Amino acid sequence: MAISVVGHANPDTDSVTSAIALATLMNAQGQEAKACMQIAAADLNPESTTVLKRFGLTAPELLEDVAGKEVALVDFSDLAQGPANLDSAEVVAIVDHHKIGDVTTANPILFRAEPVGCTGTVLNKMFKEAGVAIPAEVAGGMLSAILSDTVNFKSPTCTEDDKIAVNDLKTIAGVTDTDELFMEMLKAKSAVDGVPSKDLLFRDYKDFDMAGNKVGVGQLELATLDQVADIRESLMQAMEEVKADGRHTVLLMLTDVVKEGTDLVVLSDDPALIEKAFETKLDGSSMWISGMMSRKKQTVPNLQKAFGC
Amino acid sequence: MAISVVGHANPDTDSVTSAIALATLMNAQGQEAKACMQIAAADLNPESTTVLKRFGLTAPELLEDVAGKEVALVDFSDLAQGPANLDSAEVVAIVDHHKIGDVTTANPILFRAEPVGCTGTVLNKMFKEAGVAIPAEVAGGMLSAILSDTVNFKSPTCTEDDKIAVNDLKTIAGVTDTDELFMEMLKAKSAVDGVPSKDLLFRDYKDFDMAGNKVGVGQLELATLDQVADIRESLMQAMEEVKADGRHTVLLMLTDVVKEGTDLVVLSDDPALIEKAFETKLDGSSMWISGMMSRKKQTVPNLQKAFGC
Repeated sequence: MAISVVGHANPDTDSVTSAIALATLMNAQGQEAKACMQIAAADLNPESTTVLKRFGLTAPELLEDVAGKEVALVDFSDLAQGPANLDSAEVVAIVDHHKIGDVTTANPILFRAEPVGCTGTVLNKMFKEAGVAIPAEVAGGMLSAILSDTVNFKSPTCTEDDKIAVNDLKTIAGVTDTDELFMEMLKAKSAVDGVPSKDLLFRDYKDFDMAGNKVGVGQLELATLDQVADIRESLMQAMEEVKADGRHTVLLMLTDVVKEGTDLVVLSDDPALIEKAFETKLDGSSMWISGMMSRKKQTVPNLQKAFGC
Repeated sequence: MAISVVGHANPDTDSVTSAIALATLMNAQGQEAKACMQIAAADLNPESTTVLKRFGLTAPELLEDVAGKEVALVDFSDLAQGPANLDSAEVVAIVDHHKIGDVTTANPILFRAEPVGCTGTVLNKMFKEAGVAIPAEVAGGMLSAILSDTVNFKSPTCTEDDKIAVNDLKTIAGVTDTDELFMEMLKAKSAVDGVPSKDLLFRDYKDFDMAGNKVGVGQLELATLDQVADIRESLMQAMEEVKADGRHTVLLMLTDVVKEGTDLVVLSDDPALIEKAFETKLDGSSMWISGMMSRKKQTVPNLQKAFGC
């Protein structure tokens, strides 16, 4: 029986392309392995779909239950992020770049995790060390994953090793302009055309308790703010509906990944408090905050401070 | 504060020399690190003492409690096999060749485990990949660990990678005859004259959790079973004392390295379960199992299966 190589739930481009890459490496080393993922190809996110199409890669096959199977994990090592019955499967290999999770094994296996920006970077090293040539289309997938995970080298998680891997892989994949590849992925990821405004608001949305007040914060990552120019009123309407359900404040971060800043749309019982939180005046219903990219690291801590949490 | 590099409890030659090797590699890469072990130098087993002396290596320093420390683990990844308060320490790296244990981390780290015969083999690869030269005396320690862990290449855990590493390391260490080095270690290791039986039982001993039962497994590698003919009763007495401390089973592997088999001494609440585990009937208090050399690869997996882990 072939080893099923699978990434985490809600797979991103790294989970998808790393499954393909590790299965390729295992096959080259005489182990029967196939790339899998925890969703159907039709449910893949737009970025991953674009990457597979661009490089002519076949989507990994659907794998929901691994009872009694041999599995190799890529891009995670937490039982909770795996397919059903992972705790009763035989894990034969793990390649990752996250914190060490709670997967344990009964036998010695290959566990290769490194504190780099992307699993693709670790896999590139493994191909090199094994002296196995990476097929061009697989290299394209790995390259895309590194650009995505490191936000085109801008993420604080990006390391020198990631840059070296990109340099190796772009040559193999025949990609001359990695910025162009990144922009293609970003446009696919941030596409808003035809998507209902409430779905956009909820694309990446979380509620927080701020000193007894319910505060919702959504975020849309965009290649340019122009993408939402025509639907601002509709987005406000969606925010109003959500706010009406007992919320003190609803914020929507329209984050321009290229300009590295956020146009923060504000709907609040106390707009002055939000202005104080970000030391910026509202211009109509929103404020531009240069350098703001992270809800977790920037928006929420500032709000907590202003609300007196 | 320097990173403490430490092997498992009751350190063997691999745990001791791997701590030295990884600390050396980290230092060469600009990280302040020091080799440690969970016992005092005076309590090191005779094999490790012989190895350190032969290659002029300093014994790692005693490390009993790691609360608030940064630690790197070699040759294990189970919390139970670490120093006190390992669960509240910051684990920054793991290099191992055993099954994946229950250590988890809050941040991404280097975790490098491979299904090879010895942690020294994994470390040899890491030095090569990093382009860092191994000092001759450190190579001697790593070489000794591989010969010891693979029982001079005879253990089923021995892989092609281990043989490659031995070839690399013997050249660096200036060792022409690895058989002679192995016999020197074996003689030191298997000496039993005048050693208290409890010390012999604990010479290479580990506790395991088997479906909620505490099971201890010791191993004595011998040049011939005749070496322990006169002290079997005394060894049983030592096993009884250890078992009385809340253990379901205590096993002692008397491994004949020349005949390549193990006389397994059994003290258990359920002897029939142990017989089932190894598909062998007890002859008095022990059973001869031809070909059994490895606690990790043979004894423990069979036990886990029988206990229903």
